[in-house]
Order: sequence, then structure tokens, then C-alpha cells
Amino acid sequence: MRDAYVVGAGQSDFGSFPGESYRSLFRTAFEHTLEGTAVEPGDVDEAIVGTLGVGGRQLGLPGPAVTEHVGLHGVPTTRVENACAASGYAVRQGVQAIRSGMADLVLAGGVEVMTDVSAEAVRYWLGVSGETEWERLSGTTFAGVYAQMASAHMREHGTTVDQLSHVAVKNHANGAKNPHAQLGFECSLADASAAPTVADPLTLYHCCPTTDGAATVLLASEDAIDRFTDARVRVAGVGAGSDRVGLFQRDTYSGVPAARRAAGTAYDRAGAGPGDLDFAEVHDCFAIAELMAYEDIGLCERGEAGQYIASGATRPDGETAVNTSGGLKSKGHPIGATGAGQVVEAFDQLTGAAGDRQLDAPEVGLTHNVGGSGGAAVVHLFERDHDWADVSDGEVVA
Amino acid sequence: MRDAYVVGAGQSDFGSFPGESYRSLFRTAFEHTLEGTAVEPGDVDEAIVGTLGVGGRQLGLPGPAVTEHVGLHGVPTTRVENACAASGYAVRQGVQAIRSGMADLVLAGGVEVMTDVSAEAVRYWLGVSGETEWERLSGTTFAGVYAQMASAHMREHGTTVDQLSHVAVKNHANGAKNPHAQLGFECSLADASAAPTVADPLTLYHCCPTTDGAATVLLASEDAIDRFTDARVRVAGVGAGSDRVGLFQRDTYSGVPAARRAAGTAYDRAGAGPGDLDFAEVHDCFAIAELMAYEDIGLCERGEAGQYIASGATRPDGETAVNTSGGLKSKGHPIGATGAGQVVEAFDQLTGAAGDRQLDAPEVGLTHNVGGSGGAAVVHLFERDHDWADVSDGEVVA
Repeated sequence: MRDAYVVGAGQSDFGSFPGESYRSLFRTAFEHTLEGTAVEPGDVDEAIVGTLGVGGRQLGLPGPAVTEHVGLHGVPTTRVENACAASGYAVRQGVQAIRSGMADLVLAGGVEVMTDVSAEAVRYWLGVSGETEWERLSGTTFAGVYAQMASAHMREHGTTVDQLSHVAVKNHANGAKNPHAQLGFECSLADASAAPTVADPLTLYHCCPTTDGAATVLLASEDAIDRFTDARVRVAGVGAGSDRVGLFQRDTYSGVPAARRAAGTAYDRAGAGPGDLDFAEVHDCFAIAELMAYEDIGLCERGEAGQYIASGATRPDGETAVNTSGGLKSKGHPIGATGAGQVVEAFDQLTGAAGDRQLDAPEVGLTHNVGGSGGAAVVHLFERDHDWADVSDGEVVA
Repeated sequence: MRDAYVVGAGQSDFGSFPGESYRSLFRTAFEHTLEGTAVEPGDVDEAIVGTLGVGGRQLGLPGPAVTEHVGLHGVPTTRVENACAASGYAVRQGVQAIRSGMADLVLAGGVEVMTDVSAEAVRYWLGVSGETEWERLSGTTFAGVYAQMASAHMREHGTTVDQLSHVAVKNHANGAKNPHAQLGFECSLADASAAPTVADPLTLYHCCPTTDGAATVLLASEDAIDRFTDARVRVAGVGAGSDRVGLFQRDTYSGVPAARRAAGTAYDRAGAGPGDLDFAEVHDCFAIAELMAYEDIGLCERGEAGQYIASGATRPDGETAVNTSGGLKSKGHPIGATGAGQVVEAFDQLTGAAGDRQLDAPEVGLTHNVGGSGGAAVVHLFERDHDWADVSDGEVVA
């Protein structure tokens, strides 16, 4: 089983772009991904594209539809979908392709277009990622499902609305430093807690926006990596898990068992644990999701996430920086692109290319990507495997 | 790179089943897949589910939605989609998972429900697998796209309507022996050629039906296979290819370049060629597709497929039996289940479980699965790796 490395990673801006198509967004991400590498499109052996359905435009074959647009027609291309975890799973499948020996260089990424369809259509497209019979058709929205999780966490552990709001404050502060962020402005605790209610107890600032965007990652085998870059970021561990699609069928409302399983596997494979992390990008589609993630990936004990965020431990200067990119909350959440977008931030942090958000020489980072309300989850651990002297601002200098 | 084996394979009946759901069909296929093996559901490390979207019921997370229903919640589950090649790609991804060392036993399959939605919805669901801007939105149906391919083949190579009809006659004769077939009746050459036109030159008998159904395959690593069965069917080679989604953008109308690339890779990996095949299951969504497949997988020279089928070379007693299952034409075409369904027939033939359709001790078989009109294609070669004395009717006797 040979190792897989991230060679490059890039994304489009995340936001509302009526002048762009799902194809043009994917192309922008791909072009940014090639920057600073010696990769030519002809080097790519395989492509994997995560998307929920590009807003209904191309429900079948959206994979080949975007890869042909960047000059990769002919290359084996698979679309994968696991709702909001689509491109996290695409990256995982890329790792499998490389470890299998069937590919040396793989493009894995995702794309979604969400803002130029009606509110009704957005509700439909999100709803179809939830459980159909007992959630969507009974009128439960995604905000409603996560509100039930927040209510359970508050009841069981005493978590407060202000603790939820700390997620928004931190992630907006981070996103304000990210030129790709959709909502790149700061907010105060009072702004977040006093904002209009979307689904009690979640306010507007506890919910991520709807977003257009794309993100892609190039993965190479250990045999091929040196042909393409000196910036060596190793995939140290990968884990995935699934669960019942409907929240009401699970053992708990206040955590995501699939994510716990995924993180456990990823740590095992990496021979590492939460104490080794310098940073994490976690799936904060709603503020409660970030708090549950802290517990599921082991940054704090179960039930303590509210106090943990309030302590500042996950700020950029804290114990483990979380969502330096701004997260889904501020950077945005283009469903199919989100998981790969997390890897873009991890790669940038580990190669010194994170600009105003750059952490001080991080060694290990984690990405945590959840589909639906937890029907699927995937976790990756990435490890710096190059000297800092070899890279600067993501460009190879050696 | 360790070898992958097929441990078991099974399917639901293919047909119109208003009393079944996508979940119940998947369960039936899974139960048949376990038969004759020592596999318990808890042995499964990973699952991959191909579907176009189960008729719009569960557009997001249909993978976990079906695997939870067969007791596999918790297991990493990915949905893959490449239109009509969805579960062919699912099987390929299963092979990668095993070769990567990340899984020892993988469930790969697919499911679709197509017959209890309106004709308009079926047109939509098929249309969205074609090119959107210039095909679907301009009113071109899938039959229309394949009719253009048939017209090109007739013009370039002199192929006749009766030669197209030979596909229907052969495949209905085979399907009449398959208890799972949707259209398990025979037809005559005159029936097929004189049937009403669907899209000139294609008649009703040159088109496959719309179908509900599911099919699944269990794949094991060479390290694990002996724990589960003595029926050793090796995945000798795998190949995949993509192409421009729109027919009008490709180099040829009278062949499927993605399938040619996929077959080339599969033969290379297997160290084999078309002369080694005892049988093939090919993607005959329309009669012309089977003729193009003969040429794309190398059974005959380019342009000669019409004469080749008329010669009887692909009948069960011919040079290379093609679509002993009845093919998409007679057995049926439940989009997401089709590719895995082809592997079911290959497994049954190679383990002596094909009943009235059983070939005489075949050694090597090929499956050929195409997405859309050729935007994606995947080819597998399977090889018998057990003594015939060890298996009988698909049950291990040793």
C-alpha cells in the first residue's frame, strides 16, 4: 500500500456568481490547483468529481461534463455523491486509486451551483439529502434537523446560545482574512445571538449560506510525487463512516457517530491522535455542527464543546486552530465543493500559502466533512513532509 | 497491487414492480449475493452504490439509504454515478478499494426505480444523462441520439435494419431462458424489423425497456477470498474511459471511443485480448449499441459488426457468446443496476450457475458498460480461477 500525497489544491471564489457556470467554476479551481506544480493536464490518470447535482443542470454524467471542460476527456472520470460530503469522499477515492496502483496522478474535487435557482429549488436540493419519507416529506428542513441536534446538546450538556455564537464570531473573523470567502466580514457575539431565528435555537448567524463554487485537489503516488512538486503533503490517514440517513433512527441526537468512526479510523491509520493536530477544518454547516465535531474528532470530551470554544482553544492562536479558512459559515458551503475546499485550506496551511491566515509552521492538519445530518462522514489527516525552506507561499523555491 | 476476486453476485428480478421500493429491491439483490458464500453482513468493510437517483426519491445519500436497509449502517458507503455505467464504475471502485489495501471485502452494486414515475419524468431522468444544452434542451431523446449513431453506422458501413434486428432476436432468445428477465419472450426477425419506429431507423424492438431492479457484487482481496468461498472468479483486468458528453462533440458517431479505451486498458491489465473471451455481456441499450460494442471490444473489425451478428458468431453456440443474460434489451435496463447486473451473469457463467443459459465451462468473460451515449465506459475481464469440480450451480461443493 503506497502513500498518497497532495501535489496541489485550489478553489474558485465561493459566493454568488450569476455569470459563471458549474463548468467555468470547476475550470477556475483546476487552474489554481495547477499553479506552483509541474503538472500538465495530460499527466492526470483519473478524475473524481463530487457534486449533489450541479443544481439540476446535469444530473447524469456531471463528472465527465466538467472534466471534458478542462481538457481531460478520455480520462476515467467518476462522479461521487454523499450529499455535503461528496468531495471529501472524492478525495478519499483518489487516495484509494493511488494506493491501488491503478493511477499515479488523480484529480479529485467538487462543484456546486446553488444561488441562481429559486429558494424552493434550494430547499428541494438540500431536502433530498435528508431522509425522504419522515423528514423531507413531513416538512423538516436541514436547519430544522440541526436545530433538533442543537436542542439535544443544550438539554444534555447545558450548551448555550452564546456558545453557538462563538462559532460564528471565530469563523467570520477567520473568513475576513480569506479572499475566497463568501461572507468575508466580522460579526460580534451580540450580532450572532440576537439575529433572527431560522430554526429555534439556531439564528441566522448559526447557519451557513448557500454558495456557488468549486475546489480541486491533485493527488500523486509516492512514486510520482517528485516529478510534480517539492511541496510534500502526505495523506497520513483516511477514515469514513456512514449511518442511518434519518436523524430519528440514530442512537444520539447530540453527536455524529459516522464522524466519530471516520475520525477513529483516520487516527488509527495515521498512528496519531487529536493531540497531534495543529489545525482542523471541520464541517460547520450550522454552529452546532462545529461543536459536535470538536467532540467527534476528540478535541474535547463529550459535552464540553461549548466551554471549549468559549475558552478560545480553537482560535488561530489557540490549542488547535479550527476553520482558519472561515469554514462553511463564512467561506461558504457549495455542497459538492466543500470537502475538497477543506483540503485546499489544509494544503495551503501546510505549504505556507495561507496568506493572512497562515499558522506558524504547522505539521499536521485534519479535515472533517459530513454528508446530510450525518448519514456519511469522511476524515483525512495531512502531514507536512517537506522542509519549510523548500516552499514559500505555496511555491516551490528549491 | 493485490488481486480482487468476485465472491458472490446476485440480482432482483428486473421488471416493473409497483409493490417494491428501491430499498427492498436492493435487499433482494443483496440476499441473493450472500447465497452460497460464507459472508456475514458484518464482514463487509465498504460499500459502493451506483444509481442515477432512484427516480428522484432520494437524490442525496441514496448510498447510505440502501446500505442501512441491509444492515450495513456504519460501513463507509459511497454513491457513484456515471449514468447507465453507474454500477460498472461501482464495481471498478470496489476493485480499487481492495487493491488499495483499505478494504478486504466490498459490496458494490446498484439500483434504480423507473416504472412508477410518469413518462415525462422518465424522459427527464434519461435526458439529464445526455448533454444538457444542445441535446436535452433542444428536444433530443436518448433514442434519438442512438438513432443518429445507427444512421451513421448504416451510411458508413452498409449496416442494415435486419442486422440491427438480429440483436433483438438473439437477446430475446437468451432472455427467454433467464428467470430474472423483464421481457423473457422470443421474437422473430420480422417482428423486430416491422415493429413501430421509435426514432428512425430504430424500431421498438431495437430499444430496451424501462426497468426497476437492483444487482450487487461482493469483491474480496486475494488475502481474504478463501474465508468466504471456493468459487474463485478473478478480476483479471479493469479499464475505464470518458469522453465528451455530447455526441456532436466527438470524433465519431459510429463507435464509442470511451469504450474502446476502457477495453484496451482492461485487456492490457489482464494480458489478454478479444480472442481469449468465451463470452461477453455488452451494453445493448439500443441494438446499434451492441453492434458498436463488438467493434469497440475487438470481436470484429470496425464496420463489420452487422455481418458478424448475422453470422451467428455471438449466439450461445457461436465464437463468443454475447449477452447470454438477455442483455439490456430482454433482461431489462434499470440504469444504476445494469453494470453490476452484467457482472452477475459473468459470475453465474463462470461458476456454473447460469441454469438453462449455462455455457460449456467458460474460462474468461468480459462486461462492457456505457454511460449516456458514451460519456463514460467501463470494462471488466473476469477469469475462472477454480476447478469446476469445486463448484456446482454456483454453490461450493468442495
